[in-house]
Amino acid sequence: MVLFLPKLKYFIFDAEVLIKIDCVGICGSDVKLYSTGTCGADVIDKPIVIGHEGAGTVVKVGDKVSSLRVGDRVAIEPTQPCRSCELCKRGKYNLCVEPRYCSSMGAPGNLCRYYKHVADFCHKLPDNLSMEEGAAVQPLAIAIHACNRAKITLGSKIVILGAGPIGILCAMAAKAMGASKIILTDVVQSRLDAALELGADNVLLVRREYTDEEVVEKIVKLLGDRPDVSIDACGYGSAQRVALLVTKTAGLVLVVGIADKTVELPLSQALLREVDVVGSFRIMNTYQPALAAVSSGAIPLDQFITHRFPLNKTKEALDLAKSGAAMKILIHVQN
Amino acid sequence: MVLFLPKLKYFIFDAEVLIKIDCVGICGSDVKLYSTGTCGADVIDKPIVIGHEGAGTVVKVGDKVSSLRVGDRVAIEPTQPCRSCELCKRGKYNLCVEPRYCSSMGAPGNLCRYYKHVADFCHKLPDNLSMEEGAAVQPLAIAIHACNRAKITLGSKIVILGAGPIGILCAMAAKAMGASKIILTDVVQSRLDAALELGADNVLLVRREYTDEEVVEKIVKLLGDRPDVSIDACGYGSAQRVALLVTKTAGLVLVVGIADKTVELPLSQALLREVDVVGSFRIMNTYQPALAAVSSGAIPLDQFITHRFPLNKTKEALDLAKSGAAMKILIHVQN
Amino acid sequence: MVLFLPKLKYFIFDAEVLIKIDCVGICGSDVKLYSTGTCGADVIDKPIVIGHEGAGTVVKVGDKVSSLRVGDRVAIEPTQPCRSCELCKRGKYNLCVEPRYCSSMGAPGNLCRYYKHVADFCHKLPDNLSMEEGAAVQPLAIAIHACNRAKITLGSKIVILGAGPIGILCAMAAKAMGASKIILTDVVQSRLDAALELGADNVLLVRREYTDEEVVEKIVKLLGDRPDVSIDACGYGSAQRVALLVTKTAGLVLVVGIADKTVELPLSQALLREVDVVGSFRIMNTYQPALAAVSSGAIPLDQFITHRFPLNKTKEALDLAKSGAAMKILIHVQN
Amino acid sequence: MVLFLPKLKYFIFDAEVLIKIDCVGICGSDVKLYSTGTCGADVIDKPIVIGHEGAGTVVKVGDKVSSLRVGDRVAIEPTQPCRSCELCKRGKYNLCVEPRYCSSMGAPGNLCRYYKHVADFCHKLPDNLSMEEGAAVQPLAIAIHACNRAKITLGSKIVILGAGPIGILCAMAAKAMGASKIILTDVVQSRLDAALELGADNVLLVRREYTDEEVVEKIVKLLGDRPDVSIDACGYGSAQRVALLVTKTAGLVLVVGIADKTVELPLSQALLREVDVVGSFRIMNTYQPALAAVSSGAIPLDQFITHRFPLNKTKEALDLAKSGAAMKILIHVQN
Repeated sequence: MVLFLPKLKYFIFDAEVLIKIDCVGICGSDVKLYSTGTCGADVIDKPIVIGHEGAGTVVKVGDKVSSLRVGDRVAIEPTQPCRSCELCKRGKYNLCVEPRYCSSMGAPGNLCRYYKHVADFCHKLPDNLSMEEGAAVQPLAIAIHACNRAKITLGSKIVILGAGPIGILCAMAAKAMGASKIILTDVVQSRLDAALELGADNVLLVRREYTDEEVVEKIVKLLGDRPDVSIDACGYGSAQRVALLVTKTAGLVLVVGIADKTVELPLSQALLREVDVVGSFRIMNTYQPALAAVSSGAIPLDQFITHRFPLNKTKEALDLAKSGAAMKILIHVQN
Repeated sequence: MVLFLPKLKYFIFDAEVLIKIDCVGICGSDVKLYSTGTCGADVIDKPIVIGHEGAGTVVKVGDKVSSLRVGDRVAIEPTQPCRSCELCKRGKYNLCVEPRYCSSMGAPGNLCRYYKHVADFCHKLPDNLSMEEGAAVQPLAIAIHACNRAKITLGSKIVILGAGPIGILCAMAAKAMGASKIILTDVVQSRLDAALELGADNVLLVRREYTDEEVVEKIVKLLGDRPDVSIDACGYGSAQRVALLVTKTAGLVLVVGIADKTVELPLSQALLREVDVVGSFRIMNTYQPALAAVSSGAIPLDQFITHRFPLNKTKEALDLAKSGAAMKILIHVQN
Repeated sequence: MVLFLPKLKYFIFDAEVLIKIDCVGICGSDVKLYSTGTCGADVIDKPIVIGHEGAGTVVKVGDKVSSLRVGDRVAIEPTQPCRSCELCKRGKYNLCVEPRYCSSMGAPGNLCRYYKHVADFCHKLPDNLSMEEGAAVQPLAIAIHACNRAKITLGSKIVILGAGPIGILCAMAAKAMGASKIILTDVVQSRLDAALELGADNVLLVRREYTDEEVVEKIVKLLGDRPDVSIDACGYGSAQRVALLVTKTAGLVLVVGIADKTVELPLSQALLREVDVVGSFRIMNTYQPALAAVSSGAIPLDQFITHRFPLNKTKEALDLAKSGAAMKILIHVQN
Repeated sequence: MVLFLPKLKYFIFDAEVLIKIDCVGICGSDVKLYSTGTCGADVIDKPIVIGHEGAGTVVKVGDKVSSLRVGDRVAIEPTQPCRSCELCKRGKYNLCVEPRYCSSMGAPGNLCRYYKHVADFCHKLPDNLSMEEGAAVQPLAIAIHACNRAKITLGSKIVILGAGPIGILCAMAAKAMGASKIILTDVVQSRLDAALELGADNVLLVRREYTDEEVVEKIVKLLGDRPDVSIDACGYGSAQRVALLVTKTAGLVLVVGIADKTVELPLSQALLREVDVVGSFRIMNTYQPALAAVSSGAIPLDQFITHRFPLNKTKEALDLAKSGAAMKILIHVQN
């Protein structure tokens, strides 16, 4: 395929590289776009390439790019921030007011064969990482940003509400950052089983009939203490309520999921105890630590990848993802 | 009175001092205790001395006290934390699990003629501070702790929701910390007038018919920008909603008031933009900066004190406080 | 002059603006370049425009610039960082590995009639600021970055070693941030006189015969305490030694001056007491707070400007600056 | 022995417990006291019990102690801070102005059969920790405090200068906190061999003939990058010089060793690049994370203990420690 590349006449800017995509992970937001045509503020009204968890090989390099060469294997951080708004200049490029983020607000995704991107958001893979791990670094980088915002440190005891992919990656990242005890809760037992395999110290199946207070009590019992940090990785109002109530005085609640527009919350009961309540959005300078942690073995990211499909089975992949039965599905686009 | 002191046989521990109280401020929580017999978790079921904004003169010094002498004028930080719980040892003694805090949970207040206290929570007044300012340093120290938690810094643009004593002291503290533009909102015009005199750059009278969105819009217009920091100093659910919506991306919402047990809140809309939501509780190491800021003239605390009463008019003082027509009322207990 | 502008055919990029410079301040580094042809790592081997403290009026706007219009008065932050190195992406663009910083490493300065710059590093002046203040905001932004790094806060007691322009601006910034007591030291009395006029609470004339220990003792006596923060704004080894010895346990030493390559230092005596030792380099996101603080009146920057010259008297201005007899000299380039 | 305890009539205060010591580690400072009669500011002029790395069983409990019971196995944090100085109240009790720290400034050590201590500085051992690990938690808590001060986080690349016990424990702690690449340097190969076994990714034998610049170059080559954090765990001036030169721009140098009183240092070369230089002193709230990390398996502390002696062979133990041939030696005092 590379042979024919010149004929494709891909134009790239000086600071860009062209990437022959190898594989791309499927994320819940892809499923949402595919199923409903909307995701968050995005409404799809014309065809769009989805995908934002991609890795591939550099096949063309812009004139001003010195960090990468043709042949380098890279993980693609799926954003191109404006670099000149106040937030970008303060290093919070994840909150850029005008980002070009893969498959949102008109920017193309990378679930395709060739994709061009600014070079400094393409991160060279360490030699001992597979392309698949390179793709899966994207949700891991989200989880690490969440754990950074949650100030997880050596000895932290934490509860993660929601054992979906982000919840489980938060657990893996938290463990690598020294958290000493991590429990996950979910309403689906199979997710909890996966969590136990991937690093949870314990899990709690939350039944519909439990009151918030009962869930709080069970978490404290299971953890042997109130958590220093509670992570809401599901976005349910009840999870936010439990997080606010269960967290230790002077602890922290981190919300990475998106909840309903408004929720009935016991906020003051947390704030009076100086429990900080913070959110995390996308990725801010966490690709490098993610790559380093996978490379050093601190995070066994390959265990997180459960299913693979060729590009022409993308529909099947999306349907499987929608069913909730898979942890991380990858599409191999060159197959 | 000092002449007869030995006969009173006040016993003090080695680390304590006995203070001849000069004056004591009236706080909203005193009014609440007086009116309802309860405040927060406290339920009064037997007579109790109220008051926790006191200043006076040291008249007796424990054997192990070297920091103070008889005759020293002191502002009393109204707590005696346990000093051995995890939170005390981390410096967060305001969150101590078993504090003896004046007139709460059984500890006596200091609206009385003589009061004993651990010496290291009695702060010597700089020579150029009056006893009245010494008493009023207590709510100022609360406001400074709130502003510390709010990370207010040079150039911060802030909105304070609620122009009661704490809201106004937060404005005065924020100004001294370099905030460049401060607006206050309230539902009572007279409070806003006081705010303008004490340092607000602008004010907004919130009418009942305004929707949350209208209040947001008016704040942005008045401030010329979204606020970096929003302080809820009133505890209304609507104030918390407005704070969550109006604050700049990557900004901070600080809640110092106590809201209802649960409130319908657009929390995710703030957290997705990485607006941090934090509370502040009482006082943590802010008496010294408060005293220094009043002494240097950075905070004109005397302007904050509006009414004085003798001890035998305490009932009238409490009634005036209850009416909401006063900013800060002091009781001179030796009169 | 504007009339002839089209003929000059200034080319500007899409993200740039062309500025008709109004005035430019003279900095010690300009004097160094002028006198010696070198400054820090820079060696001048061909003609170069100096100057990096400029303000002016926008006369042309690039196609992609929406933040500025022709006619806007702007203060020029004199750098154009690469925006793609790790440090830029973390918000530390002052440490960019390949900055284009005015009159260093080959980038032109702005002591000239017309100058083009990226729009997002041109900060619109508030209406109540003069062009002269706009120019002088540059060293103020340096001082504010230094004070940010020094974690100065309400009630800080500080000593500043060196009462040159940066030392005095640090004092003005620290006062605006709430420092309660600020003393400056210098070996020249006239600088100390200026410091007293511009906000120092007290000053110390350091005589050559004083030992480091004597200077420490005198600072503690004058301040009434060990300083929370010591700022070395002169770069002498002796200042660094004094700073390390005098600072309070758990305090901070900030170095903004450049000292000799190596210095004999009692570093362990500071570190064992957990006194942090940090440096500050140039400007990182402090133009906005600087402009806000001057606009609100918190920092009376106009008092800092002592001399003005027309462009054709630049040599005289540089000679005066070299003599050390001026605080801040401005060149009005359109005169 | 417990049988005879009542006869010993140990008096304990209300907040204290009496501990039957099981084992105590030997630290470099013990060796220094034993060999020279001095250590740091301490000069021994009468007999003193040494030892400050102790663990044992609670045999008596003060009247106000609720956190511990007779029979509990505890690790002893060897300090009793004043709890009322400014630093204690800010949570920095390691910097307390009047601490009673085991075997320093007149306070007794715990290398003895029975020892009494305030209960809140006796930390209950998790069931899966041995007494030996309980004793060795003391130097680990020092290393964790150092790593906290060094802001080590996921993905940090670090160099540790000095592969003595503290250097190696810093490596173990840093690994548990997520550091992705850790190299140690020393002048003794056997220490480097131990470091490799206990978690170093690579080591560098520093030969006397190397210049500082050569060591810098070799570290960068070995690490594949400049370190984010450099830890001086040996206290040599040359180590501090190398640390200042080798650390990445915006990185951090942490000094945990004690160097000579004054050292010739290229401090400005680090500060200009905003490399922060900080020290760490003793232990500040790190026993709990240390115990949690050993209990969870994140830090294999048992591998760090290399030699055991009975109490009556203490002299031999001290002589072995002095020789530098052992990593961690424990004295079993009940044998």
